[in-house]
Amino acid sequence: MSSVEKWDMFELDLKGPSDGNPFLDVEIGATFALGDRRTEVTGFYDGKGMYRVRFMPDTVGTWTYKTLSNQNVLSGLEGKFECTEAAGDNHGPVRVFDAIHFAYEDGRPYRPVGTTCYVWNHQGDALEGETLKTLKAAPFNKIRMCVFPKHYDFNKNEPQYYPFAGAALTDWDYARFNPEFFAHLESRIRGLMNLGIEADLILFHPYDRWGYSTMSQETDDLYLHYIVARLAAFRNVWWSFANEYDLMKEKTSLDWDRFFKIVWRNDHVQHLRSIHNCRGFYDHGKPWVTHCSVQHHNLDLVGTWINQYAKPVVVDECGYEGNIRHNWGNLTPQEMSNRFWLGFAQGGYVGHGETYLHPEDELWWSKGGKLYGQSPQRIAFLRSVIEDAPATGLRPAGLGNVTVCCSKTGEYYLYYFAERQPAEKSFTLPEERKFRAEIIDTWDMTITPVPGHFSGTFRLELPGKPYVAVRFIEN
Amino acid sequence: MSSVEKWDMFELDLKGPSDGNPFLDVEIGATFALGDRRTEVTGFYDGKGMYRVRFMPDTVGTWTYKTLSNQNVLSGLEGKFECTEAAGDNHGPVRVFDAIHFAYEDGRPYRPVGTTCYVWNHQGDALEGETLKTLKAAPFNKIRMCVFPKHYDFNKNEPQYYPFAGAALTDWDYARFNPEFFAHLESRIRGLMNLGIEADLILFHPYDRWGYSTMSQETDDLYLHYIVARLAAFRNVWWSFANEYDLMKEKTSLDWDRFFKIVWRNDHVQHLRSIHNCRGFYDHGKPWVTHCSVQHHNLDLVGTWINQYAKPVVVDECGYEGNIRHNWGNLTPQEMSNRFWLGFAQGGYVGHGETYLHPEDELWWSKGGKLYGQSPQRIAFLRSVIEDAPATGLRPAGLGNVTVCCSKTGEYYLYYFAERQPAEKSFTLPEERKFRAEIIDTWDMTITPVPGHFSGTFRLELPGKPYVAVRFIEN
Repeated sequence: MSSVEKWDMFELDLKGPSDGNPFLDVEIGATFALGDRRTEVTGFYDGKGMYRVRFMPDTVGTWTYKTLSNQNVLSGLEGKFECTEAAGDNHGPVRVFDAIHFAYEDGRPYRPVGTTCYVWNHQGDALEGETLKTLKAAPFNKIRMCVFPKHYDFNKNEPQYYPFAGAALTDWDYARFNPEFFAHLESRIRGLMNLGIEADLILFHPYDRWGYSTMSQETDDLYLHYIVARLAAFRNVWWSFANEYDLMKEKTSLDWDRFFKIVWRNDHVQHLRSIHNCRGFYDHGKPWVTHCSVQHHNLDLVGTWINQYAKPVVVDECGYEGNIRHNWGNLTPQEMSNRFWLGFAQGGYVGHGETYLHPEDELWWSKGGKLYGQSPQRIAFLRSVIEDAPATGLRPAGLGNVTVCCSKTGEYYLYYFAERQPAEKSFTLPEERKFRAEIIDTWDMTITPVPGHFSGTFRLELPGKPYVAVRFIEN
Repeated sequence: MSSVEKWDMFELDLKGPSDGNPFLDVEIGATFALGDRRTEVTGFYDGKGMYRVRFMPDTVGTWTYKTLSNQNVLSGLEGKFECTEAAGDNHGPVRVFDAIHFAYEDGRPYRPVGTTCYVWNHQGDALEGETLKTLKAAPFNKIRMCVFPKHYDFNKNEPQYYPFAGAALTDWDYARFNPEFFAHLESRIRGLMNLGIEADLILFHPYDRWGYSTMSQETDDLYLHYIVARLAAFRNVWWSFANEYDLMKEKTSLDWDRFFKIVWRNDHVQHLRSIHNCRGFYDHGKPWVTHCSVQHHNLDLVGTWINQYAKPVVVDECGYEGNIRHNWGNLTPQEMSNRFWLGFAQGGYVGHGETYLHPEDELWWSKGGKLYGQSPQRIAFLRSVIEDAPATGLRPAGLGNVTVCCSKTGEYYLYYFAERQPAEKSFTLPEERKFRAEIIDTWDMTITPVPGHFSGTFRLELPGKPYVAVRFIEN
């Protein structure tokens, strides 16, 4: 009997008909069972007469399955496999946890520290390999990336694979997928999984010359069913329904609602679901949205959004460290790091990107490759501070002010003064408890304990320079 | 016959009764005439039986006058004086000019480059002398200052003079002014005039322990009549009706309207009139408001306000360079300088202040003294750039974006990239004209010409560092 680790993928590979159009004609799926539990999973046609059903077991034990199909040869096939304990770095898929935060399914807190390489997966093996190598040494545990190739400044090259069959570049056979395209995508998602990185997968985006942003409703829906069948059993997948959904003028809010619902109903793992704006927000309050994926330059608003939506807030795009002519891509490293701190110090999370001009137009934000900036090491430092924070209970405090603060009342307080340079500040902590204080220089990456213990109202001397935080921990 | 330079003060000094309460009982004024013109000016009682009528002539020639009074001894006195051409640095009072800008009455452009020393005039001769010395070497041509003393952090000392008679500190005789107080104020205004600095005089403010912020309506009005009679003939006076008017909870918007109207009707020179907010704006659209005096931290909005009010916008308070615990007082010098550039690069003006901790609590913003910061020299550099700009026609352009720009169409374009670090930018200028380009490093204070001439759409390489501006001048 085959054996699969919990939260790994069990894949059922089946030979079937290859005549006609199996993508449309053949229905394939299976029911997986453990004790009283029954989970229905849709499979997919992978070309060359091969059908696959992918399942991610979440419970240790002996699972059984039985296939369903409109083809006799694929129907009623039964079997079983053993699901074993997760091992190593396998903590399961990421879930919303503690209302506005995240954790892996095994309970271990997950704090998103993301970056953006929109189409690193469309750059060919050499550069894609380099991107994985860079990521291995980088502080990021999430990456925003597109399924479809991208047409935009600094990124006019053709991809290696196309998602649909068809001879000409704009005359696709939208009724037939290209299994090679998806197999390649899957190998890259698996490469990220091996590095402990979540793939925040962008299902639609407007920067397109191939027609994938303006497909018919029927094709959009077919694509969503297909990709969910292929990818749901990868534990490190998140569904990001769009990049800048509001720039895709052909789609209405009803389309986006429908897309969410298709994935919501068909994804047996219930991966995280979000949608990213350019200007106006999609209504993150809708029940199928698990967390807010935000593009905004003003990080002061993070606490406000958390209180408004009572969901995790990830400002996936707040501008990028770089020096290009576009204003979203010429932040200083100080400001990129500052925005990460502003977000976290209000109980939210922020995404990185890098856009330094490059002689071969290999800008990290679009193609991956190498990182040249100075913010990643500061983000690594921030990540260590984040991971030292209490696992639960961290909430935004002190909204709408220059000083931002998140706290777990009575236990932990993190104040951040951003670009201001106060030489002193007054604080008020609970009278009945004692706290130790540390001054954090977020740019120089130092943590300096302040002698003594603190409670009630008191004043602290500060370095009088920008990018300083103060942390109080109950002791 | 006495002689007075145009826009200087002609003062008529008259002996009169000192019994009763001359502040209330005696009416004194004069009609000044030149050719067909008649100007009525109210005088004031200056104590010890002395009455004065102060007049600022604006036209060269032989002026005659005749007094009016409810006292026979002061009534019907006639005389004349010669008004001569203005000389030296005397350019007359500052007026609104070119809709959203300012000029002296002789037509010379005046670009406000202001600072704030709220109560420098209440600190005694030694420190007040030092402040004037500092100002002499500083780039500022306007200062925000209060008539009344101030009670606030870092400023709890008693003033040397009080505006009203009375024995106890909170039991004033609000029907009698203290002429010594006003004579001292006038000597300080004259000291500023000698340095070419406009006195943006704050008539009311909330930071008070003496009762001057909560006087009766009758006293408020009496005070306004008195101060206008005393100060209107100083050419460098501006009327700022309040600092943070919205924090003076005892006063209503009707009170502020009435204050404006009293000064509007009684000031024979028609000095500039504005009112400064803490949070919400007074309606700067009202006809008696000559320009917008704004407190706001977000300088991106300057162009919006200019378009909204079609009046000059002076962000007198946008935060101060310093290191104190209050968030309005711990800007870095870079950010103070940046905010000046952001304002000017949208066609507006910005005010400076400095709040570095000082062992004797001599913080510039409140008491004057010395300047310790690094922004004043950058502001001096900006002032030289401002003074090189076209005298008229400068308007905000490109609102709501990170790159701000003001321009005189076809002649002059100033782009500013603030804290961004673009290594290149694309620009579009009129096709039919030729422009020379200069790259301005606003922090290092350098102006570097770019070889060649530019028109139409083109791209420029930029230093890829923060605080850079680009200037295009038709050539």
